[in-house]
Amino acid sequence: MTNKDARTPASAQDEKSPEAGKSIGWHKAYVEGSRPDLRVPVRQVHLTNGQSVTLYDTSGPYTDPLVDTDVRRGLSPLRENWIIARGDTEEYAGRPVRPEDDGIKHTSPRGGLRNLDAVFPGRPRQPRRGRDGQAVTQLAYARRGEITPEMEFVALRENVSPEVVREEIAAGRAVLPANVNHPEIEPMIIGKRFLVKVNANIGNSAVTSSIEEEVEKMTWATRWGADTVMDLSTGRNIHTTREWVLRNSPVPIGTVPLYQALEKVDGKAEELTWEIYKDTVIEQAEQGVDYMTVHAGVRLPYVPLTANRKTGIVSRGGSIMAAWCLAHHKESFLYENFEELCEILAAYDVTYSLGDGLRPGSIADANDEAQFAELRTLGELNRIARRFDVQTMIEGPGHVPMHKIKENIDLQQEICDEAPFYTLGPLTTDVAPAYDHITSGIGAAMIAWWGTAMLCYVTPKEHLGLPNRDDVKTGVITYKIAAHAADLAKGHPGAQEWDDALSDARFEFRWEDQFNLALDPDTAREFHDETLPAEPAKTAHFCSMCGPKFCSMKISQDIRREHGGSRSEIEAGMAQKSQEFAAAGNRVYLPIAD
Amino acid sequence: MTNKDARTPASAQDEKSPEAGKSIGWHKAYVEGSRPDLRVPVRQVHLTNGQSVTLYDTSGPYTDPLVDTDVRRGLSPLRENWIIARGDTEEYAGRPVRPEDDGIKHTSPRGGLRNLDAVFPGRPRQPRRGRDGQAVTQLAYARRGEITPEMEFVALRENVSPEVVREEIAAGRAVLPANVNHPEIEPMIIGKRFLVKVNANIGNSAVTSSIEEEVEKMTWATRWGADTVMDLSTGRNIHTTREWVLRNSPVPIGTVPLYQALEKVDGKAEELTWEIYKDTVIEQAEQGVDYMTVHAGVRLPYVPLTANRKTGIVSRGGSIMAAWCLAHHKESFLYENFEELCEILAAYDVTYSLGDGLRPGSIADANDEAQFAELRTLGELNRIARRFDVQTMIEGPGHVPMHKIKENIDLQQEICDEAPFYTLGPLTTDVAPAYDHITSGIGAAMIAWWGTAMLCYVTPKEHLGLPNRDDVKTGVITYKIAAHAADLAKGHPGAQEWDDALSDARFEFRWEDQFNLALDPDTAREFHDETLPAEPAKTAHFCSMCGPKFCSMKISQDIRREHGGSRSEIEAGMAQKSQEFAAAGNRVYLPIAD
Repeated sequence: MTNKDARTPASAQDEKSPEAGKSIGWHKAYVEGSRPDLRVPVRQVHLTNGQSVTLYDTSGPYTDPLVDTDVRRGLSPLRENWIIARGDTEEYAGRPVRPEDDGIKHTSPRGGLRNLDAVFPGRPRQPRRGRDGQAVTQLAYARRGEITPEMEFVALRENVSPEVVREEIAAGRAVLPANVNHPEIEPMIIGKRFLVKVNANIGNSAVTSSIEEEVEKMTWATRWGADTVMDLSTGRNIHTTREWVLRNSPVPIGTVPLYQALEKVDGKAEELTWEIYKDTVIEQAEQGVDYMTVHAGVRLPYVPLTANRKTGIVSRGGSIMAAWCLAHHKESFLYENFEELCEILAAYDVTYSLGDGLRPGSIADANDEAQFAELRTLGELNRIARRFDVQTMIEGPGHVPMHKIKENIDLQQEICDEAPFYTLGPLTTDVAPAYDHITSGIGAAMIAWWGTAMLCYVTPKEHLGLPNRDDVKTGVITYKIAAHAADLAKGHPGAQEWDDALSDARFEFRWEDQFNLALDPDTAREFHDETLPAEPAKTAHFCSMCGPKFCSMKISQDIRREHGGSRSEIEAGMAQKSQEFAAAGNRVYLPIAD
Repeated sequence: MTNKDARTPASAQDEKSPEAGKSIGWHKAYVEGSRPDLRVPVRQVHLTNGQSVTLYDTSGPYTDPLVDTDVRRGLSPLRENWIIARGDTEEYAGRPVRPEDDGIKHTSPRGGLRNLDAVFPGRPRQPRRGRDGQAVTQLAYARRGEITPEMEFVALRENVSPEVVREEIAAGRAVLPANVNHPEIEPMIIGKRFLVKVNANIGNSAVTSSIEEEVEKMTWATRWGADTVMDLSTGRNIHTTREWVLRNSPVPIGTVPLYQALEKVDGKAEELTWEIYKDTVIEQAEQGVDYMTVHAGVRLPYVPLTANRKTGIVSRGGSIMAAWCLAHHKESFLYENFEELCEILAAYDVTYSLGDGLRPGSIADANDEAQFAELRTLGELNRIARRFDVQTMIEGPGHVPMHKIKENIDLQQEICDEAPFYTLGPLTTDVAPAYDHITSGIGAAMIAWWGTAMLCYVTPKEHLGLPNRDDVKTGVITYKIAAHAADLAKGHPGAQEWDDALSDARFEFRWEDQFNLALDPDTAREFHDETLPAEPAKTAHFCSMCGPKFCSMKISQDIRREHGGSRSEIEAGMAQKSQEFAAAGNRVYLPIAD
């Protein structure tokens, strides 16, 4: 994605690395669209040879030194005027925040909201929804032929025409998650025609973590390239944590409303009701959640299909719904009330992420009857959601060995009418706890190559514990690698220019350029400096890996230098010889007789 | 590879983890073959449910508490009697060790061997070679229909019949690298019918590292699963470092003789001669190097084909040979003298690893004319080596985007008559220096699934510096994941039993079993303990990731418990329901009309 077109960044400033405190060679810049309030952020890398490379940027205003961010004030509402200008939404009083929204019981001796931060200190706001319950979704606009500012924004980000964006959304092959109550986001798109996206999960659990840590994890994850963030908090302060995350997030936020609903019934799955669930969905939609995982495909008749599995049901939402279905011996209330749920989501433009509650949790359970029975139901629900103009993506596994991965994406695309696939990994083996970012990064790269639109990251702590800051970074970087490898394999226009720029820097021993172009400049620089810390080594024509005499790139350069004047001259000379060789049928030197 | 057959480990002892100092649930054991001196090491994992799982073990005598290892004495010569019994080799005086073998110049003011350790303090030995220069290779024996003790050893290791091993070696589809001067190794096999193998590179460079560090890296790498180790030392003390590594290594050792030859001419490629190279090969063969990378495919006419490449020639050996060819305007002396080289290698049973000196060093250069021209020459050389009964494998790239990987293995198998392919990665993108174990782990898993027999690891320091102890471990673990994921995808018999055992332990909350079965038990345990350190948490039915209420596996278990008595009862009951459901055409619940 080097900046080869006519678009000029609107601004560019010097910046300090938040990590190393060093002056570094990249800047936050903006590409301006058809209107002054449509400014697409980019990461502009300035090279020492005078060229520059423009990279996709998910880090939000936090990396713009001209923007003064304050976590207690929240980000500025970039999309607010676009939403208001459409005239199809209205503000309303909204549902009051209740103590139990934060997991505090009425019977609690403390009473009331313990945490004053539950009322976000930033600008006052009322929730907004579609007038008269009408669908105010990007899908509805796309189908009507309207190109919204959000669509133009992602078109600039992806280097495609706005019409392509509109078409893909209208066809249901892409989603643009953008709740009318989350005006702070920089719009992004999820679909196989576009760059492969990465989601990072954050969230406290009953065991550990705090609100501040979750907000910090969110900005940290987007700093390294997370395209969306799911807040999977359980335990106390769910509502408040989410409010803080939303008001400070430049990327779409996803949730699993079932988790909060379960907290409201004190963790007793059988006490869940459609009313409690619906109320929770509205609560979250009013806050601005952009997409919600809904496990409506876990139907009563599918639960017995998991009986002979090695690892049963491994999706939290899936196991909760299965427990409910069996306890009541009734069909899932999510499945039964799916149409009403569609009406609610349409009024806020919340995107469905239809959950794979029956995904395989081990190699042994991959691609089994339970998994594919649910997938067929997700296909059915996708068609219903479409009737209500609700944007929809489909979640996928899980643990799948390499030879069974392709069947997953091929079946999903067929059954779900090419709706975007959003997969967790898949993990290609079960034997490496503590390294499941890698077992799954392998599967993620492959399934993305074959058409998956967004990858849900896995951190080194998967199966073992809650990820800390380092784990989040490792998970995001691993998945950015998988996503970019897939962009290359798909031949995504412009994807290889990034690799080419870095390889040019590498061959020409422009070390600083190599670091600045790296997915993780800090660690690349740190690793180099570990053995050759002196500043002159940054211009050396070798590194400590092979030393000066054995540096193949140095020798390659020497060859070019010695057998011609400039690099271009030697290339011309060598190319000439190459042509002569080819002209002789590549058989100038006859093979030794066998 | 759980131990399901009748083979009983010959011995098993309690052991302490060398890392944590904790008593752990696995033991070194041996499977005895047809003779008492044929004992195949295995890693026996004892589970808390009374079962046990037998895993392939590369760690050598170092993990056997009954063996007293001493790095200055070396390992005991396991294969010595087998080699002597064949009666086709002879001891001889051998080439004297010279100061320049360790990079010390005659003109050096110090004079002589600076390092007394150059004479290995262990048991005195003379080199051995085939009588009258005859081929004493496993390939020669296999073709004659002989099953050697080495072949029986690997058959037990791989759980196949000795005849399969012999056939694969005879056909050239597998190699069993085992120099007659390296009797210390535990034989292993490299071929697509067998488990995918992993090589770890070690070696000092002129810039850093010491002899002791290299020996330590070798035992460390094999401790985590490296199947072979390449000593790529350059700079001083090459001969001595290699001697210490060989005498202490339970796995085959590979080298690139060209590196040492270049040191002998003070790094001036143009001063290399066939005589210096040949002398170096004999020096290393007498020491016991099991396989040697020979860049005989870098021919003069191919060098111009690299002129328009983004990153030129990135193989050290390839760039050295290209420089020599251009400096002399002559065909490569390796190519010209290949038949004589075959005679030397055959006399010691050194296996060829035909180097890919023109492998692509960037995404832009993948699968280009230079690369495939060299591959065709490697196919030609493979057929020559076969005439001399020299075992041969073929090296492969490099940097290759995912969609171009399969062409590499398919072409190699076709051109090289199914000789084992041994690839570096491939790296699937250039943009992530400091994470190239991951960019390459993705490509490695894929190419191994499609038939690559051995993977050369890449560490996080690739492109940046020399790997330290942690980097070696990370590289090996990443590649063991890739190799095992490929074994699963290939449907290797028994491969999934390891995953199944770990997933059973996970579902049943047998935390200690989960740790002990993990590829890296230490890190898995450490990650779990980070958030839930108390000992009771080791038996808890949840972890800190989701907490007790949201643990899907706990809920899954509860479902099974509540809807029946024992797990088997509920499974029977649920299976019954499942059958009823299937009998009704899976349509008990009609889909909602679209």
